[in-house]
Amino acid sequence: MASPNVSHSVTLRVELDNRPGTLGRLTTAIGEVGGNLLGVDLVDVDAHVVVRDITVLTADPEHAEQVRRAAEGVAGVRVRSMEDRVFRLHQGGKIEVRGKAPLLNRDDLAMAYTPGVARVSLAIAEQPSLVHSYTVKANSVAVVTDGTAVLGLGNIGPEAALPVMEGKAQLFKEFGGVDAFPLPVRASSVDELVETVAAVEPVFGGINLEDIAAPRCFEVEAKLAERLSIPVFHDDQHGTAVVVLAALRNACRVVGKKIEDLSVVIAGAGAAGVASAKILAGAGVGRIVVADRKGLIYEGREEFGGEKAWLAANTNPDRQRGSVGEALAGADVFIGVSGPEVVSRDDVATMAKDPIVFALANPTPELLPEEIEGLAAVVATGRSDYPNQINNVLCFPGIFRGALDARATAITEGMKLAAAEAIASRVTEDELAPTVIVPSVFDREVAPAVAKAVAHAAVADGVVRADA
Amino acid sequence: MASPNVSHSVTLRVELDNRPGTLGRLTTAIGEVGGNLLGVDLVDVDAHVVVRDITVLTADPEHAEQVRRAAEGVAGVRVRSMEDRVFRLHQGGKIEVRGKAPLLNRDDLAMAYTPGVARVSLAIAEQPSLVHSYTVKANSVAVVTDGTAVLGLGNIGPEAALPVMEGKAQLFKEFGGVDAFPLPVRASSVDELVETVAAVEPVFGGINLEDIAAPRCFEVEAKLAERLSIPVFHDDQHGTAVVVLAALRNACRVVGKKIEDLSVVIAGAGAAGVASAKILAGAGVGRIVVADRKGLIYEGREEFGGEKAWLAANTNPDRQRGSVGEALAGADVFIGVSGPEVVSRDDVATMAKDPIVFALANPTPELLPEEIEGLAAVVATGRSDYPNQINNVLCFPGIFRGALDARATAITEGMKLAAAEAIASRVTEDELAPTVIVPSVFDREVAPAVAKAVAHAAVADGVVRADA
Repeated sequence: MASPNVSHSVTLRVELDNRPGTLGRLTTAIGEVGGNLLGVDLVDVDAHVVVRDITVLTADPEHAEQVRRAAEGVAGVRVRSMEDRVFRLHQGGKIEVRGKAPLLNRDDLAMAYTPGVARVSLAIAEQPSLVHSYTVKANSVAVVTDGTAVLGLGNIGPEAALPVMEGKAQLFKEFGGVDAFPLPVRASSVDELVETVAAVEPVFGGINLEDIAAPRCFEVEAKLAERLSIPVFHDDQHGTAVVVLAALRNACRVVGKKIEDLSVVIAGAGAAGVASAKILAGAGVGRIVVADRKGLIYEGREEFGGEKAWLAANTNPDRQRGSVGEALAGADVFIGVSGPEVVSRDDVATMAKDPIVFALANPTPELLPEEIEGLAAVVATGRSDYPNQINNVLCFPGIFRGALDARATAITEGMKLAAAEAIASRVTEDELAPTVIVPSVFDREVAPAVAKAVAHAAVADGVVRADA
Repeated sequence: MASPNVSHSVTLRVELDNRPGTLGRLTTAIGEVGGNLLGVDLVDVDAHVVVRDITVLTADPEHAEQVRRAAEGVAGVRVRSMEDRVFRLHQGGKIEVRGKAPLLNRDDLAMAYTPGVARVSLAIAEQPSLVHSYTVKANSVAVVTDGTAVLGLGNIGPEAALPVMEGKAQLFKEFGGVDAFPLPVRASSVDELVETVAAVEPVFGGINLEDIAAPRCFEVEAKLAERLSIPVFHDDQHGTAVVVLAALRNACRVVGKKIEDLSVVIAGAGAAGVASAKILAGAGVGRIVVADRKGLIYEGREEFGGEKAWLAANTNPDRQRGSVGEALAGADVFIGVSGPEVVSRDDVATMAKDPIVFALANPTPELLPEEIEGLAAVVATGRSDYPNQINNVLCFPGIFRGALDARATAITEGMKLAAAEAIASRVTEDELAPTVIVPSVFDREVAPAVAKAVAHAAVADGVVRADA
């Protein structure tokens, strides 16, 4: 059973007999079944009865039911209701759309709406680039998915993907000041998705692709980037890759190796694996091999198409064959973006001195940090309950903030590399440690630093709209 | 020249010599060229110079330039800059997307995003109707246009339409508490627009169509209503029609006529004209004739298609021929949704006792109230600078609020009639007057009253989702 946690917390509304000892018996009973008491709030009281809200962390929905039954079994206690706090938080949605200024009187209306707005519309009709200045397009990003690869849940469709896209929109605003709107699209093909996004381009200043299954995601991104004049960024690829590179730079500082001397093994040739291989190649990593489900990818293994053809041509120059585990012998870095059980502690034991292990599969990493304790010099995961969380939120709010600020028309490799540098630089020499290779996701300075670096890189790469 | 007004207001930043009399000379000079002083703010001051922001209402951009030149001509005054306040207000857009709750720590993140959000996504995957409860779809409306008939500006395209759609989104939130997002679509055909809106349905709880040229708008609405399971409402048609009916009910109270006894002439067979004819027919108006550019529409005039075929079959039972002006002889009501100069004061003089005139063309009504002073018993326009403004904002926030609250799958004729009743009822017997037949657009009680009536009507009409 997992540990009780806030993502499985419940609030029980209970009536207690107004006699000494009742609350104590209740909290004891909850504790006895493993419920973790988070808070007790008073709702109502009279001479006979006290109504309280008891908030409890549980391990899973079944455990929550167990907690409820335990409470119901206490003498003098009646459970009125049990509310799932996560569902409660999602009730009615997590985001809202609002005006930046109130509309209180006729003057407000005459300036924001008719007749004043007509002059702004006419100005844009005459000079189309002004849409980037005088509308929400100046600051908006669509969080687009087709729902085919949502979290670890698979192809659950656009509606079921929506809560995730909404959460992402929240993060965009909270960390990057970006006005992001979720856009789960009902599309049964690459072209349907591309056509839909292209058709709604007028209102968006950028497109963040999310949770689209590989290899479809590569084609969608390439077609949209070709077709649109605003930045397109598939976060599962490039967001992950940027944070991986940032973490790897700092891991190198910890173990005293140079990035160009590294030998890196990547398990997983999906969105994150391909993008990580590409950004590491761009950053000058010496040797990269990538494995898919069939083993290491090498030129000639089969007739590859798409991104795997790129991997075959541009990684694994020695045409090494075999499994991920075998490839780890002598390697400096393992990056897992696959699933559990592709490698073992014994494999890590064969790595070069001071192994760097990024086990990023979620929710179950390829290797748990405790499995390789004493072996690996630096370990990172995708999870928040271990040190060194590789979390895309370190990247996407800042990279779009920078792209929008610079009026960029695309997100280049240079902008991604700059973002990785900026993230890595937020960890000072003082802070740097095997367990501190990335800044906290709650470090509010990360996004502005990333934005500044990305905007500079956009200018340097010449992808800034001339009409700015 | 138009009167100086807030939708043409400018702020001049000026340096004045710090000597008595300078400001007086400046304000006098501005007044002499017809600028209307709205405010004077102090920006900075030292021994020699005072910097002030002078806000002035002007009549148009040329007049604003004249004001600037007048200011520059005053001894001891230097104009640093002149800012257009409407463009200033639009800078960076008028709306924002934000989380309803902040994300301050790991617990917030674990509940709103991963891992907690996965349970909500799974619940929706298992029971799709839950998307209406646990996502922004519970409260969201797309403000959709193809930019083909924006305000009175014509086919200016989706980008130029965006400021208008944003303003509408602001109004939705401000008056109806609805989270509306502008969706100007790049579409070259009815089907492209329909396909795009259908593809993004997952995130929206309703579709508000806006500023789509007739007759395309009719087809778009019909196809979307057929295809989607959320309410679809073309505001230029039905919003206008609902407020027209509300105003007509109260105009009847003023002149003591019954709605079923009225003879109504409608000039204009576009979106608003067709919808007004339909809602008035539905409300039991006795006799309706509608004219397009060629004159009165009657069965047999030509081979009509689409909505005009409906008009030919369901209005003008006597097959009256001729012009709008001729049709006014003996009529009780004139409703203009066309353009200036289709009728004259002399035509109004031929109407029945106590003529009711709704001259709704914007910005120039078919007849200005002063033109028919002493003739018409009740006059309404679409303008905010005359009494009785027929403004859709009295309808759309409340009608969508009610539809969302009721979990309606469509907006029925019954819901529209209920909305009109609710709007009309907001004018009490005490308030009712020839110049007070509709509530103020700033009456915050209108939208809740409309919502309540609309929600009841949705239930009565059986268009409420069973899974609610």
